[in-house]
Amino acid sequence: MNGAESLVHTLLASGIDTVFANPGTSEMHFVAALDRIPGIKCVLCLDETVVTGAADAYYRVTGRPAATLLHCGPGFANGIANLHNARRARSGVVNIVGDQATYHRPLDAPLTADTEGLAHAISAFTCRSTSSAEVGRDAARAIEAARRYPGQIATLILPADTAWEEGGVVARPAPPAPPEPVPEAAIAAAAALLRNGKPTMLLLGGKAMDEAPLLEAWRITQHAGAKLLLERSPARLPRGRGRVPAERIPYPVDQGIAAFAGIEQLILVNTQNPVSFFAYPGKQGHLEPVGCEIFTLSTPEQDGPAALAALRWDLGAPESAPPDDGRRPAPPGGGVTPEGVAQCLAALMPEDAIIIDEAISYGRGFFPGTRAAPPHDWMMLTGGAIGDGIPLAVGAAVGAPGRRVIALQADGSAMYSVAGLWTQARERLDVTTIILANRKYAILLGELAGVGANPGRTALDMMELSNPVLDWCQLAGGMGVPAAQAGTLEELGALLAESIARKGPFLIELLV
Amino acid sequence: MNGAESLVHTLLASGIDTVFANPGTSEMHFVAALDRIPGIKCVLCLDETVVTGAADAYYRVTGRPAATLLHCGPGFANGIANLHNARRARSGVVNIVGDQATYHRPLDAPLTADTEGLAHAISAFTCRSTSSAEVGRDAARAIEAARRYPGQIATLILPADTAWEEGGVVARPAPPAPPEPVPEAAIAAAAALLRNGKPTMLLLGGKAMDEAPLLEAWRITQHAGAKLLLERSPARLPRGRGRVPAERIPYPVDQGIAAFAGIEQLILVNTQNPVSFFAYPGKQGHLEPVGCEIFTLSTPEQDGPAALAALRWDLGAPESAPPDDGRRPAPPGGGVTPEGVAQCLAALMPEDAIIIDEAISYGRGFFPGTRAAPPHDWMMLTGGAIGDGIPLAVGAAVGAPGRRVIALQADGSAMYSVAGLWTQARERLDVTTIILANRKYAILLGELAGVGANPGRTALDMMELSNPVLDWCQLAGGMGVPAAQAGTLEELGALLAESIARKGPFLIELLV
Repeated sequence: MNGAESLVHTLLASGIDTVFANPGTSEMHFVAALDRIPGIKCVLCLDETVVTGAADAYYRVTGRPAATLLHCGPGFANGIANLHNARRARSGVVNIVGDQATYHRPLDAPLTADTEGLAHAISAFTCRSTSSAEVGRDAARAIEAARRYPGQIATLILPADTAWEEGGVVARPAPPAPPEPVPEAAIAAAAALLRNGKPTMLLLGGKAMDEAPLLEAWRITQHAGAKLLLERSPARLPRGRGRVPAERIPYPVDQGIAAFAGIEQLILVNTQNPVSFFAYPGKQGHLEPVGCEIFTLSTPEQDGPAALAALRWDLGAPESAPPDDGRRPAPPGGGVTPEGVAQCLAALMPEDAIIIDEAISYGRGFFPGTRAAPPHDWMMLTGGAIGDGIPLAVGAAVGAPGRRVIALQADGSAMYSVAGLWTQARERLDVTTIILANRKYAILLGELAGVGANPGRTALDMMELSNPVLDWCQLAGGMGVPAAQAGTLEELGALLAESIARKGPFLIELLV
Repeated sequence: MNGAESLVHTLLASGIDTVFANPGTSEMHFVAALDRIPGIKCVLCLDETVVTGAADAYYRVTGRPAATLLHCGPGFANGIANLHNARRARSGVVNIVGDQATYHRPLDAPLTADTEGLAHAISAFTCRSTSSAEVGRDAARAIEAARRYPGQIATLILPADTAWEEGGVVARPAPPAPPEPVPEAAIAAAAALLRNGKPTMLLLGGKAMDEAPLLEAWRITQHAGAKLLLERSPARLPRGRGRVPAERIPYPVDQGIAAFAGIEQLILVNTQNPVSFFAYPGKQGHLEPVGCEIFTLSTPEQDGPAALAALRWDLGAPESAPPDDGRRPAPPGGGVTPEGVAQCLAALMPEDAIIIDEAISYGRGFFPGTRAAPPHDWMMLTGGAIGDGIPLAVGAAVGAPGRRVIALQADGSAMYSVAGLWTQARERLDVTTIILANRKYAILLGELAGVGANPGRTALDMMELSNPVLDWCQLAGGMGVPAAQAGTLEELGALLAESIARKGPFLIELLV
């Protein structure tokens, strides 16, 4: 058994059966091993940002890491932006990076780069195998790291000779450990804060936004008269009819600060202190009011869900159900507005849909209008590295076959990872992409105004995407994804319904 | 004057007047400064790999660095692969990376990443400004580093508050220093080697492949009965009628080794020891024969061109001219072959064209067939990080207006940076892209065969791009680049001639 074969067997022994791949020469022995050993599904992506974004989404929907297959330092580098988003989503990913043979690396061949430096910059765990006998063990350690609650980026660098040499040994990683329990004293302290009558907020992140803990948090805040808020960009949020109608930290800094106004006690559950996305001259970076007490009930690595259940019990909050969200709206008509798009989604999305939201500036109002939709999961751009919507849709659809994925995709951001449409076509994934074609970097125009600048020609030229116009129907068609344009909400509704009714991908260019 | 304005003035004072940009929020003050201060041309690119590839080509054609404008760690990461190619091309690039404000970075906002770690992994010079007063000085140091002969990657990290705070000071970098001279003893030693009658080869790289030193090297080898060979992938090679007909190190390892067979003395001029691109089981990594003496006449940082002129003088080699290359061929007809494509190019390319060659496996035979073409520059994928052809074409056309750029582009590689076509349309660049549509990763099929594997379904699925077919006319049209398909050499010739006769970009999908 060579090193590559020991790696494949170690992945299989760990239950990892999906590889998102953009292979190169140094990975040929691994590819050959995948050929010989059945059991792993390989999903080819045409660039690495699609690979890593797909792996992120796969973890978000399945809770299990996928492996990625990447080529040397530069190929890994192409995947870093979406690994950044995966890190912020606290997703587990096992990167396998083929690299120069151990004895070839000192020769400084053209593709040789600082693969380890790049890996360290983004990974919680980085390991370079030095012989075929170590590959299985190193892979097991990487898998253990990726699975560490709530999930981590692990990168295994595989020099070509460690893949092709004989002497591979299959390893079996330790099963995932449960999350660290929250001390009883912390739960009691949180209960005391919620009882002392001061204005208090629960801020939830990560696994505390799963359906059960979110409901417990809602019951707690209803009972205690506290506020409930979520992280700005949830990795996966269960929403829709029967679920808790929670809001997120708003992106604009002034609205972000306003969301915490008057709060004197802030209880963090599986999240960090709330901060603005960027700094702005003369504005605070922390969102909570000056003097607000911050209490960490649980870090992202701790068992916030169990702590919330215990806290509700401690407080004696009843097991109430969230309020009825009212009737599911009818499909709207007329001109395209953010509210109209949300209503259209709420009216037409199927049960158990997965919504991918890289709508950026246009999508800030989508939450209120989709409360009465059927139960669904909402997945966001967690790390602000734009260009993960199309890749997330790939990974979500691969990880959750049978569920319709609807990607709300800003046009500027889509261009960073447009090649992912090809993988959607190749794998016949049930993805409806709605391109929100405003033909500009709208968020930057807002930010430029925020710095007090009155944009001139040079600045405008760097924020407008209308010269030439991107023709999304042609782009999608060029990659085998059928597409059509919508200019009204009626047209959007008709195309959305049509795409949901058929198998495979579809793209709607929505002129907004 | 704020820090951003001091940066713009420092760039202008250094003669840097071109910025390839993909800006984000943290760069808004720099964008506002570009608005207020005239003199810098900003070229918007829709992803960062286009930005950095364009800056690489700009340096290759002008000898002057461009600046790049990139957004935080993840945006920089998206540009690393083409910075890797730029590093291997020994191009000077000044990266400006907007980042979190100094006091905001410790808050770990969502987009915060290890920007410095990423920069260090690829840059010869990395600096993070810590106050607005330092920005001008730091920029000058970055420019000095980028210009250091023959060219380097320099990265300036610009926290947002160092851009917006007052107190900026314009700096003026030291003028570029001339290259380090080659000691006379080294020239004498090389002359002695060339006189001792043993089989000898001159291997040229970097600036030693400019027109004048290449001619001197050819005269030396003609006179001394030595062989002449070039680096595998020249950053820029002057070719065509009246120029030296030199060959490069072949990519396939066996052909690479064969190119050095029988050589007992190898003289390096502005290049490194020749090595195979990758290691292969049982094959040597060094290309020169065992026992071959290697003598470094000049490192890439030294003045190899002057050393070659002195060496020719020392040897008494005459100032002969290269042989006539014969008649310029007529446009060919018939089915598409690599030789036919080369002949078509030779027949139709205009005087002083710039050829961008990311043809990968299909283009290995393009050199012999284009010798009798008019004088032109040939620019290659230097670092093996595929996806730089379209970006290189952008940068070459911006840097050399009035010259037709012809990009020979493999289809699989093109998908990594396809968004660059939009910038070609927006800037109305005179670029003809010929997509060599073989609809597979042909090089990987060769590599898989090279490792002795008989590819099965899983492996083939990761190397074939035919399901679905990429429709390049739609992809180009979607980004505003007119396009047409060619299935014969006649059709290729007609479209090539048509595209050369008109202004602006054009794309030919050549079915091969």
